[in-house]
Amino acid sequence: MSNQITIALDAMGGDDAPHIVVAGANIARRRHPDVRFVLFGDEKDLAARVSKQRGLSEFVEIRHAPEGVAPDAKPSQVVRNGQETSMWNAIDAVKNGVADAIVSAGNTGALLAIAMLVLKRLAGIDRPAIASFFPTQRGETVMLDLGANIRCSERNLVEFSIMGEVFSRTVLGIENPTVGLLNVGEEETKGNDALKDAAQMLRELDLPGEFVGFVEGDDIPAGAVDVVVTDGFTGNVALKTAEGTAKLINAFVRETFRNSFWAKIGYIFAKRSFDKLRSRSDPRRYNGAMFLGLDGVCVKSHGGTDAVGFATAIGVAIDMVKYGGNASLKTTVERLDLESLRPQAAAAS
Amino acid sequence: MSNQITIALDAMGGDDAPHIVVAGANIARRRHPDVRFVLFGDEKDLAARVSKQRGLSEFVEIRHAPEGVAPDAKPSQVVRNGQETSMWNAIDAVKNGVADAIVSAGNTGALLAIAMLVLKRLAGIDRPAIASFFPTQRGETVMLDLGANIRCSERNLVEFSIMGEVFSRTVLGIENPTVGLLNVGEEETKGNDALKDAAQMLRELDLPGEFVGFVEGDDIPAGAVDVVVTDGFTGNVALKTAEGTAKLINAFVRETFRNSFWAKIGYIFAKRSFDKLRSRSDPRRYNGAMFLGLDGVCVKSHGGTDAVGFATAIGVAIDMVKYGGNASLKTTVERLDLESLRPQAAAAS
Repeated sequence: MSNQITIALDAMGGDDAPHIVVAGANIARRRHPDVRFVLFGDEKDLAARVSKQRGLSEFVEIRHAPEGVAPDAKPSQVVRNGQETSMWNAIDAVKNGVADAIVSAGNTGALLAIAMLVLKRLAGIDRPAIASFFPTQRGETVMLDLGANIRCSERNLVEFSIMGEVFSRTVLGIENPTVGLLNVGEEETKGNDALKDAAQMLRELDLPGEFVGFVEGDDIPAGAVDVVVTDGFTGNVALKTAEGTAKLINAFVRETFRNSFWAKIGYIFAKRSFDKLRSRSDPRRYNGAMFLGLDGVCVKSHGGTDAVGFATAIGVAIDMVKYGGNASLKTTVERLDLESLRPQAAAAS
Repeated sequence: MSNQITIALDAMGGDDAPHIVVAGANIARRRHPDVRFVLFGDEKDLAARVSKQRGLSEFVEIRHAPEGVAPDAKPSQVVRNGQETSMWNAIDAVKNGVADAIVSAGNTGALLAIAMLVLKRLAGIDRPAIASFFPTQRGETVMLDLGANIRCSERNLVEFSIMGEVFSRTVLGIENPTVGLLNVGEEETKGNDALKDAAQMLRELDLPGEFVGFVEGDDIPAGAVDVVVTDGFTGNVALKTAEGTAKLINAFVRETFRNSFWAKIGYIFAKRSFDKLRSRSDPRRYNGAMFLGLDGVCVKSHGGTDAVGFATAIGVAIDMVKYGGNASLKTTVERLDLESLRPQAAAAS
């Protein structure tokens, strides 16, 4: 049995594309010996770049698709006119069985829209969601949705809980993941109706992990649960607020080391430890948002990342394929039989 | 003209009440020479505690109201049966002109419900909101709503913008405050209808400050605007996520200083600078959430704070009274004449 995994790469997406994509592929190739790539972009340019990356060429196939998707293009327009883009061709490669997964650092909305259209949703899933993981006080926590669905019904939140649990279990290898619904208090009476109804449904469901109820904003960085479930609006705001706050405190710390002669001396002694801390909380180590709930693996890299960060996003796609995330999700959704549980909820938007 | 300000204090609210309330009053009294207090709680106990705080007794009047509000009591029940509580009596003192403002570290929901019932809303304001300020990369930012209104109409968001702007200008003394609506992107097409309509209304309004459009989660800690406006659900999650992330990074930094011999040496040199940083970002310096939009000044202190933190919350109430926050808000609301601007919006919940 061959364990070879083929990843389609959108070489035209990202602030510093195609450089980060080609160099990122070469980093990922060294980490994951069984991986192969199909690069979509400008053939000549990519060939030249690949040849400069030592050892990469034998792992790469290049397909000519030089048209890029503008970072500010409207998803609806790209869906209408974007069939020739590198992004669309890379997604098509998964649909056609040429690749096992697709990674892009391009326009998030367009990527999601094309992936929904081409790959379709997994059977039993109403709304795919964007999931990502990041460091907490107790390890790594998965959060979803991070922006695919601005408004969510109870049914959507239940689906997100199942998808997040499967992702945490199969890809991060957490044995019995705990799942919490993000709310403004832990009491059952808090929050809107969708949250209360979703909590009720999750208590009745035989979830593979453990549903612990409501969690609050400070429970996210504390790592109180393995999976934080929320609507795409709140999730997006929470993620960006956390990233921004981390940046702010790190800036305060840097400033503190500079603001006196003695502090500067102190930094000389503490530097090695702080370098380790920096590497541990390096955002490039947590790059790669999964589009969960699609019939195919699609990973979105941060547009502003570098080759190291892009390689991490490729790693997320590889793990999702290698550990059979989607097969596991399919089995779980079938077993739980959401439609029968509370059919009236399925109709909610 | 007498500048004396009288603050009613709920001595029974807070994890460590009444100690924090009495000791906090004594700290605040030294900072604000014109302030007097009316303490509501157990008369005998308070008298004994006040006599132990040097110099406090002549600034304090005690009123017997020994019944407390349980931290987990339902606001609806407290509204029905809580007339004898220290919290209710303290709020009544503002209504009756005995005090200029009330500060409590007790049950937030109950405090808001009683304050709404007793003090009533300011003319022209549909929904009062909870506002607080905290340190950012560029100074101090006000955010509201932090949890009073789970769902918000465009009209509510416009009101919050006006209230936040007035608070920032009169109490924090920021000259021409910038106001942003929290969203998942800066483009005009992002977000739900309430957000898009509120942005449209704010562009048309002659706001005293400057409406800059949509901001994102990372703009909050960056201090991109002076006032961040959002619904109570998102605001509550964002605030708690920011607090939790700050705690997480601070824990990482402490750990880093401990994890090697050289780092420990470094800490000895850098300690004084880090002590300064700690004091600058001390949450006790940012304690005190304003209930904006009520016809009276009501400030909520963190329940878990100490005397220093409680004194800060008293300071917020004093500033709101001293700088005429509510009078300024009244004038602004009257001038803007929200009802006439877009009457159909006023009907939305």
